[in-house]
Amino acid sequence: MEALVLHEYADSGNCYKIRLAAALLGLGLERRQYDILKGETRTLEFLAQVNANGRIPVLQVGGRMLPESNAAIWYLAEGSDLIPGDRFLRADMLRWMFFEQYSHEPNVATLRFWLLFVGEENLTVAQRGQIAGKRAAGEAALRLTDEHLQGRTWMVGDAVSLADIALFAYTHVADGGGFVLGDYPSIQQWIERIEALPRFEAMNAPR
Amino acid sequence: MEALVLHEYADSGNCYKIRLAAALLGLGLERRQYDILKGETRTLEFLAQVNANGRIPVLQVGGRMLPESNAAIWYLAEGSDLIPGDRFLRADMLRWMFFEQYSHEPNVATLRFWLLFVGEENLTVAQRGQIAGKRAAGEAALRLTDEHLQGRTWMVGDAVSLADIALFAYTHVADGGGFVLGDYPSIQQWIERIEALPRFEAMNAPR
Repeated sequence: MEALVLHEYADSGNCYKIRLAAALLGLGLERRQYDILKGETRTLEFLAQVNANGRIPVLQVGGRMLPESNAAIWYLAEGSDLIPGDRFLRADMLRWMFFEQYSHEPNVATLRFWLLFVGEENLTVAQRGQIAGKRAAGEAALRLTDEHLQGRTWMVGDAVSLADIALFAYTHVADGGGFVLGDYPSIQQWIERIEALPRFEAMNAPR
Repeated sequence: MEALVLHEYADSGNCYKIRLAAALLGLGLERRQYDILKGETRTLEFLAQVNANGRIPVLQVGGRMLPESNAAIWYLAEGSDLIPGDRFLRADMLRWMFFEQYSHEPNVATLRFWLLFVGEENLTVAQRGQIAGKRAAGEAALRLTDEHLQGRTWMVGDAVSLADIALFAYTHVADGGGFVLGDYPSIQQWIERIEALPRFEAMNAPR
């Protein structure tokens, strides 16, 4: 595989997904840090050379740039056991990855970012007006995930897959956004299973 | 392939993606309608039997249910020319599909739904407070897409792919949400190319 560089903000769960997938796959990554609180992903240089959408993570593969965390982990995992061999299960894995980006991340991750990193006192009026809606939607996403995991070991099929990695990233730190993981016992057991995987790497592992 | 049933609301762009992909692939679909304005995807029966997340579209494959529009079109298109054969391009296609669900649909599609189907006078205070932000974010997503298409025929590589189908669905009807497609000339030309594809099926094609 060509040299891999991760353009990231280390505390972002979306960036952590890529580090975790790489670790589980035994792949090396060079890491380059950008402080999103200082606007370092909105500079003209970043927009021109890394991602015109002004966001991290971006996985650099040789000279080519691949934004979007779930596309990046797909790229890394192709041909490995982290993607199911069965056609329906493969699409079902993508289903949970799209669920994660649409129904989970904008609520569970955004509240964590707003409350833990930006600070509630620094939010705009429009952002404050969204807190209650994001709280309810985030709880609904966690409840759905918890109910899906009842009686199951992994999100899709009988093995750990990218669906687990994508959902684990922000779920296991959801308390930072004021969510109560103790309300979701099946999620808690699943978190323990992921953390027990061979080659597992924690979100705050040293660089 | 097993029998395919699309659980849908015909005016939803997410549902249209699946009909368009099936049409381009020459696959037949049975269609079942749910009126989302009447809450028909939130009934206990729908939640238990079709999608616990209370959303359409859901692609039924034999007896199995596959929610999430972009996962459904992936399922239909596997092994076809609508998915690039090159590993990086395949991930890059997924990159635009995740961009569509994260940066495009929640803005471009939601404003269309709120303004054209729900009616501005029926929105909640919290929804009204989000209009300006969604307008700006939707325009940014359309601008990024337009700039990406400058000098290109398709979103990824040299052929039409699921990235085009996913982004076309809500882009070509963005005027319904108050967006001005005339501001995006590269998008306009790309829309014409998609509409000229063999076996193209319009959003409002009769059932």
